[in-house]
Amino acid sequence: MLVIRPYEEQDWPQVWPILHETFAAGDTYAYAPESDEAEVHRLWVELPLATYVACAPDGAVLGTYYLKPNQPGLGAHVCNCGYVVAPAARGRGIAAQMCEHSQVEARALGFRAIQFNLVVATNEVAVRLWQRLGFRIVGTLPGAFNHRRLGYVDAHVMYKELVS
Amino acid sequence: MLVIRPYEEQDWPQVWPILHETFAAGDTYAYAPESDEAEVHRLWVELPLATYVACAPDGAVLGTYYLKPNQPGLGAHVCNCGYVVAPAARGRGIAAQMCEHSQVEARALGFRAIQFNLVVATNEVAVRLWQRLGFRIVGTLPGAFNHRRLGYVDAHVMYKELVS
Repeated sequence: MLVIRPYEEQDWPQVWPILHETFAAGDTYAYAPESDEAEVHRLWVELPLATYVACAPDGAVLGTYYLKPNQPGLGAHVCNCGYVVAPAARGRGIAAQMCEHSQVEARALGFRAIQFNLVVATNEVAVRLWQRLGFRIVGTLPGAFNHRRLGYVDAHVMYKELVS
Repeated sequence: MLVIRPYEEQDWPQVWPILHETFAAGDTYAYAPESDEAEVHRLWVELPLATYVACAPDGAVLGTYYLKPNQPGLGAHVCNCGYVVAPAARGRGIAAQMCEHSQVEARALGFRAIQFNLVVATNEVAVRLWQRLGFRIVGTLPGAFNHRRLGYVDAHVMYKELVS
C-alpha cells in the first residue's frame, strides 16, 4: 500500500539521498551528476509547480515526482513531470503509480498534456513503462544524452494528451 | 550587408521593441504575450549563454538571437536558439543568416547539436526555412502551442546535428 501525497519540507532528508543517488548514476536524468544538495532542492522542490512523495505505510519515502509547466505562457498548458524511485524500492510498480497519480493531478490543475523531454533510449524499462501508461514516442533526438557509462546515446520526446 | 555581433547592453532600446512586438503577437513564441520588459530582458539576455544582434550598416538592429544549453549537465552538449527579426525587416533572409551564424557559434562553443523545442506548425515559413538549413522535424507535439488567434495548434521539435 503506497500513499502518494504532496511533498513537505520535512521529507527532504529522505528525498535528497534518493535524488542524489539517481542523478549521480548519470544514466536517466540530465541533471549534472555532481549537483549539490541546494541545487537539487531548487530544481526538484522550488522550481516545480508541485512535488509529491510516495510513502510506505511506515512513512518511509520510496519515490518522488515533480510537476511543472513545460513551457512558459502559450505552452504552459502542457506539463512536464520527473519521477524517481529509491533504488531499493524499484520493481514494485511505484513509478507506474506515481505516473498515474501525476496524470490525475495534472488534469485537476488544468493541464492538457504531459511531455517528457529527454527519456534516455537505453532506459528501456522506463520507455516501455511510459508506453504502457499511454505515452507515445513523438520523436528521437540523436545523441542528446551523455550517458555516464555509455557516452552519447539517443533520447526520446514522449507525450500523452490528457483531453480529447 | 548584415553585421551579426554579440549583443551589448546599449542595444536593448532597439532589441526590446522587436521582442515585445513578436511575443505580443502570440503566434511564434511561447513567452507570455504580456511579458514585461524586465522579464523579456531576463529570458533573452540574462539566462542564455550568449545573445547576438544582426545590424544594418547604419547600426540599426534588424534581428536578434540567443544561444543556450537546452538541458543541464548530461544534456548540455545540445544547444537551443531563438531568433527574432524586426517585423519591418522580414523577408530579407535575416533569420537564415542568423541561423547560419548560430551554427558556427554553437560549434565553436563545443555544442554537438541544435534543438528547437517548440516550432509552431502554423509558422510554415519558419518550418521550411529551418528545414532548408538542415534541421529535421524530429516529432510533432499535438496541440502544444496556444496560438493567440488560432487556439491550440501543433508544434514541432526540430534538430540538427553539428558533428558527424
